[in-house]
Amino acid sequence: MTVASKPILLVKSGGEAALPEWRASFAEFAPQLGLEVRGWHDAGVDPLAVEYALVWQPDAGRLAQYPNLKAVISSAAGVDHILADPQLPDVPIVRMVTPETQQRMAEFTVMSSLMLLKDMPRIIGQQARAEWVEFSTPRTALETRVGVLGLGALGLACARMHAQLGFDTAGWARSPRNEPGLACHAGAAQLPAFLARTDILICLLPETDDTRHLIDAALLRQLPRGAAVVNVGRGTHVKSADLLAALDEGHISSAVLDVFDTEPLPADAPFWRHPRIIVTPHAAATPSRRERARQAAVAISAMIGGVPVPHLYDRARGY
Amino acid sequence: MTVASKPILLVKSGGEAALPEWRASFAEFAPQLGLEVRGWHDAGVDPLAVEYALVWQPDAGRLAQYPNLKAVISSAAGVDHILADPQLPDVPIVRMVTPETQQRMAEFTVMSSLMLLKDMPRIIGQQARAEWVEFSTPRTALETRVGVLGLGALGLACARMHAQLGFDTAGWARSPRNEPGLACHAGAAQLPAFLARTDILICLLPETDDTRHLIDAALLRQLPRGAAVVNVGRGTHVKSADLLAALDEGHISSAVLDVFDTEPLPADAPFWRHPRIIVTPHAAATPSRRERARQAAVAISAMIGGVPVPHLYDRARGY
Repeated sequence: MTVASKPILLVKSGGEAALPEWRASFAEFAPQLGLEVRGWHDAGVDPLAVEYALVWQPDAGRLAQYPNLKAVISSAAGVDHILADPQLPDVPIVRMVTPETQQRMAEFTVMSSLMLLKDMPRIIGQQARAEWVEFSTPRTALETRVGVLGLGALGLACARMHAQLGFDTAGWARSPRNEPGLACHAGAAQLPAFLARTDILICLLPETDDTRHLIDAALLRQLPRGAAVVNVGRGTHVKSADLLAALDEGHISSAVLDVFDTEPLPADAPFWRHPRIIVTPHAAATPSRRERARQAAVAISAMIGGVPVPHLYDRARGY
Repeated sequence: MTVASKPILLVKSGGEAALPEWRASFAEFAPQLGLEVRGWHDAGVDPLAVEYALVWQPDAGRLAQYPNLKAVISSAAGVDHILADPQLPDVPIVRMVTPETQQRMAEFTVMSSLMLLKDMPRIIGQQARAEWVEFSTPRTALETRVGVLGLGALGLACARMHAQLGFDTAGWARSPRNEPGLACHAGAAQLPAFLARTDILICLLPETDDTRHLIDAALLRQLPRGAAVVNVGRGTHVKSADLLAALDEGHISSAVLDVFDTEPLPADAPFWRHPRIIVTPHAAATPSRRERARQAAVAISAMIGGVPVPHLYDRARGY
């Protein structure tokens, strides 16, 4: 029996140290597949045996070295870093969408909205100066209009949890949607009306050519004065200089930013020390390895079994 | 017509500057009562005409100067500062419980629980140092057990909003309670079981002789290792030195503290700079003046009309 007789799943996520956990999880969720889980930097891998890759940010050109590759499974939210590979082979790409990711993202965005509603940027600044100043905030969640930009699996979960908590919640997507209990706006034509009624804008768009720098000065101006921004999509969705200008001018009151053009965010980036910005280190919705292995095992089993694979990336839609 | 012909409502809340808003709100909600709204520091008030006082922290002995006083209405949550007046006249005391207070308190505690779940104390520290360290948190709300200590109007609202969001929520009260969808523990006998199943303890007790320093070393030890504490009750519920010791020992992971023994919290208090504590300036649930005037007007109208007054303080229960 040769090494090539077992299909190899190549994993780039968490490094060498994470391999035992990946192996245990795949053994738990897909024992019948007999997958051999190998690390991205393992020099002894037979290229002909690599059939699946679990990766978020592949080295350019690397995946093209595996002629028998059947699928690339994103190991975290979004497929933009996979698509950025100019030699990406023409195989199905599976997005990582677990119920746990949705739950975590919904929790993180609700936390962010509440922190902006209660003016936690001010309170955090006061604590740093050991300064006690009591103040009251003007609204409760019931009078606060949240707008979720992007109604994919994550955006919908966020919108639903906000609505459940009593926020006046609406969503915007590229094409018309009908979601019970959620005011859905669609396309460029309905974007102005969506923005005009949004006190807290939550960005959960996919990264496509259309969405790059969508949140710029012109868009921010269409939000009501004093509105706040939460970006948990991609750093490239926001034109940083425009957001900083709108904050300093007072048109935008505050922001929670979890994603950035360059990650790690460089130490000299102005976001770090801005008194109206909360910076979080891409922390919104990282699911556990076990949960991600479960989802990857479901996708691989479906491919092998010839049944529809959930969360396949669609090149035409761009997500 | 003399000044005494109109019943006076004496207001101590927000100072002279807030009087126009109080007057407008009482004119809106209780025009038929013909109340004359006067400020606490107004020297020209006829003591015989004062029938109602809206106050949270009366100067000791002051209320005893009004022989025709019919009721004291607390202008914020809790009546402990009113009861602290050794010459308090024997008149009904009305607690301030507005739907807005409940909504705000529920929002604040849910925000606090999510901030502790996502380890915002660590993230806030990292931002202060412009330090990017990605990390993942072990649980979602669905696997997190929240315990609400005190099931008054505010505690119940908090417990319900946590349960709605998916937190595994229980409550503890002095006497047995039956609340749909909420695991209720009662009395000293069931306190250990309640604590043993609580990852995030939220204190919303009233201030009574029984609850003073209830959260001490012995109680904290009964929480699972790594548990977190949110105090939005009174500063006196927590034995500060014991909480600090439990945090430094690692048994308690983090805390959100909104109330303190001494407020404003002195600049040299160790809470301010503790890396695992978030200090908020008694900000949890201050409702708007308009909302509080609405509630006070309801209470005064009920007293005059001879119908049951909602939220009357009960000396036997202690809240």
